[in-house]
Amino acid sequence: MILAFIGTAGSGKTTLTAEFGKYLEENGYSVSYVNLDTGVRKLPYRPDVDVRDDVTAWELMEEGLGPNGAIVRSYDLLVPKVNDYAERIRELDGRSDYVLIDTPGQMETFLFHEFGVKLMEAFPDALGVYLFSPEILRKPTDFCFALFFGLMIDLRLGITTVPALSKIDTASVDELRKYLDDVEYLTARLKLEPSTQGLLAYKLCSTLPELAPPTRVLYLSAKTREGFDELETVAYEHYCTCGDLT
Amino acid sequence: MILAFIGTAGSGKTTLTAEFGKYLEENGYSVSYVNLDTGVRKLPYRPDVDVRDDVTAWELMEEGLGPNGAIVRSYDLLVPKVNDYAERIRELDGRSDYVLIDTPGQMETFLFHEFGVKLMEAFPDALGVYLFSPEILRKPTDFCFALFFGLMIDLRLGITTVPALSKIDTASVDELRKYLDDVEYLTARLKLEPSTQGLLAYKLCSTLPELAPPTRVLYLSAKTREGFDELETVAYEHYCTCGDLT
Repeated sequence: MILAFIGTAGSGKTTLTAEFGKYLEENGYSVSYVNLDTGVRKLPYRPDVDVRDDVTAWELMEEGLGPNGAIVRSYDLLVPKVNDYAERIRELDGRSDYVLIDTPGQMETFLFHEFGVKLMEAFPDALGVYLFSPEILRKPTDFCFALFFGLMIDLRLGITTVPALSKIDTASVDELRKYLDDVEYLTARLKLEPSTQGLLAYKLCSTLPELAPPTRVLYLSAKTREGFDELETVAYEHYCTCGDLT
Repeated sequence: MILAFIGTAGSGKTTLTAEFGKYLEENGYSVSYVNLDTGVRKLPYRPDVDVRDDVTAWELMEEGLGPNGAIVRSYDLLVPKVNDYAERIRELDGRSDYVLIDTPGQMETFLFHEFGVKLMEAFPDALGVYLFSPEILRKPTDFCFALFFGLMIDLRLGITTVPALSKIDTASVDELRKYLDDVEYLTARLKLEPSTQGLLAYKLCSTLPELAPPTRVLYLSAKTREGFDELETVAYEHYCTCGDLT
């Protein structure tokens, strides 16, 4: 099974890759790790495949590029090797129970860059885990944004993607769950928003039930391992029932 | 009028800010420039407000952070100053015909970080220009992704956002326009896609007409200035008719 952790810088991808991997290993599974971040210095796991063997954002910055330019350029340089990477990941998948992919630090480098899109085209059965942290959820429209963003990743990368609230040990989650677990409740709340964006969010969320099967949101903490059993179940169900995550 | 150029690293925000600004100045308007990118080295315009006066990604990297960490941390440090920035931009808006905002190099730093969201909350009447470049449009589902991404920005930042294909001098645009200008045509094409994502894209695009007024996509080239007159018109109409961009 291939799991790709996707999310913005700081959403907890790397820590979760390491901790969920440990959890799986402790439960008797064989696990391989893939690092796709050219800009990371230290990893809390030992990668079996690591893009930094080919290029790092650091070396490009030493040549004079700024951080944004260096990050983009590093993936430009990886594009000709995308089939090699796909092949190596496929090999890992053949000999491990789980392959955990830690995607680029900046999510947009993965979603908008040819490297990310082409790599994932090789794995249409992979499961995407879209990580977002509690601090992005400040107002009702934000919940709609987060749920739709999961669909955007699904659409762009061509892989079933499950939204997962990360770092749940850092926030009071009960209030957030009310909105994330019950689209009807969220939609009703959005109807009360007077702004143009409130109306847009209301319309978007009203269409959610027709757009996708009811999505189960995961609640994860790399610190307490809360939700790890559920992530394992979701991954298992995805591979056994081909994408029905209801 | 406040225009914010939003897009991934490499989508052409900075060049467009400079060139569109020059174009406006040549047409007799007074223009102010705001740079929100902590990671840019050189700018092709002279910023009236510049976040690098407070913090740069460089200095944080010298303290040992990686490029992703440094970028995120730089905006963490700017959060306490967000009201000052809003005030300074408001002042510029009072004395200039146009204020052009060049947003952070990495789009997600703007969309997911408190700094970007809070700053734009101060300017609900601003017009967002969502720049995406031709290379992200490889298959039919990508067009749906691009159109919806504009709505995601609208929803997240609370500002009317118009999608704009940038760098049109680098690609043959006629074929792309067929899909971008005619949602019905795109939807019909998506109906033929056999994949799960094709179905998702088909459903998403079918709802587009109900979600938002028919969006006019802009086609821009900073090199040839193609589309600049239309961007000027859209900005004018936005400020005169409060968001009706049909």
